[in-house]
Amino acid sequence: MAKVRLYLEQSLHEGQSVSLTREQAHYLFGVMRLTVGEEILVFEGKNGEFRAEIVETGKRGGVLTCVEQTRPLQLPPDLWLLFAPIKKARTDFIVEKAAEMGAARICPVQTEFTNAERIRRDRLQAHAVEAAEQCGGTFVPEVAELARLDRVLADWPAERRLMFCDEALVGAREALAGPSGPWAILIGPEGGFSDTERRRLHDMEQAVAVSLGPRILRADTAAVAALTLWQSSLGDW
Amino acid sequence: MAKVRLYLEQSLHEGQSVSLTREQAHYLFGVMRLTVGEEILVFEGKNGEFRAEIVETGKRGGVLTCVEQTRPLQLPPDLWLLFAPIKKARTDFIVEKAAEMGAARICPVQTEFTNAERIRRDRLQAHAVEAAEQCGGTFVPEVAELARLDRVLADWPAERRLMFCDEALVGAREALAGPSGPWAILIGPEGGFSDTERRRLHDMEQAVAVSLGPRILRADTAAVAALTLWQSSLGDW
Repeated sequence: MAKVRLYLEQSLHEGQSVSLTREQAHYLFGVMRLTVGEEILVFEGKNGEFRAEIVETGKRGGVLTCVEQTRPLQLPPDLWLLFAPIKKARTDFIVEKAAEMGAARICPVQTEFTNAERIRRDRLQAHAVEAAEQCGGTFVPEVAELARLDRVLADWPAERRLMFCDEALVGAREALAGPSGPWAILIGPEGGFSDTERRRLHDMEQAVAVSLGPRILRADTAAVAALTLWQSSLGDW
Repeated sequence: MAKVRLYLEQSLHEGQSVSLTREQAHYLFGVMRLTVGEEILVFEGKNGEFRAEIVETGKRGGVLTCVEQTRPLQLPPDLWLLFAPIKKARTDFIVEKAAEMGAARICPVQTEFTNAERIRRDRLQAHAVEAAEQCGGTFVPEVAELARLDRVLADWPAERRLMFCDEALVGAREALAGPSGPWAILIGPEGGFSDTERRRLHDMEQAVAVSLGPRILRADTAAVAALTLWQSSLGDW
């Protein structure tokens, strides 16, 4: 079975021909040294995963044909991850982990104690694609534009519950009991939430504060830990 | 309150004088620009955390005095993390996360599909120290020497249970019910366990296979996810 997995932009179905971009051709034929007749796995996040045969190679492109569907689309639970961007490597890491752990949407937010003024959305989206390629997923979570937390909370959907990680007394098991449905996880900045933000969150009917233990976790660790608690309680684990 | 936290080698108690090494002096006086009369927090993993005053500074050393204990020693649960070392950055990351998440001992193991022939134990131990400094812990887990998994399992302590992550049907909640006591978590190599290893693990009376969901996790993600499941079920969260 082919090991290479490639995310494609165009809609896929059995028998479909796919033209490769220069970058995809470089990766498949230059880096992975694949040639005509060999097979890879492809997905586009909508119609599942397909076995595809290489029918044409070139320096600047190439052509694949989708032979057969190998897996149906497997959507993650309706879970958003909101986090305050931090240093570049750790932000990349959070996006990678969110995709691996099965978040449906990744939303970078600016809190009062967040330094990041901007993010490279396209670069973060590429990290999410790479993580999906690696983890065998058939879905790629969308990375949203950076938004201010206060505005995000002002427009918060009534039916979406929000788990936020705070030094709270509530154990995760109690907090995460009850129905599934739309949820989001908010990871605070490493400097913590401001008093205004904390009050705002505690006042929200949809919000649940969850403790992540007695040690202070970095934001990237907290993201994986919170996703684990949610997935094992309400998600698809 | 002082923000700088420093791990020291020598045993600490109130009133104790501490001579600083050249590296510690460089960090405190060169990098952090602290001077005589200022205070930091210090710990050595045995007697808790102390507020310490700088009484002498210098390029090659300096002296602190422990003023008072600020926190007692807080030992993590008796949990070992065994993992197969991977690429340098991700191995560093696993050690950092294990210290943050409250593992008591970190054991790099060589499996049949592990490439690593050696590790820099001292460098990994330094990462564990730095993570403990950052996460407010008063304990630093010891990083063991790299050992072969088959030998580690051959000498496995009868009373220590072992959670290993495999594509298993057992949900984590059921698997991690029951008494606490000594435990270990084994994270397999990214190439997976060999058939021999998998049989050996399934045959062990102390071993429990736990699933980490439908997507394939990288080893570093799996380490944080497994530590979260354990800590929230049987640990100190």
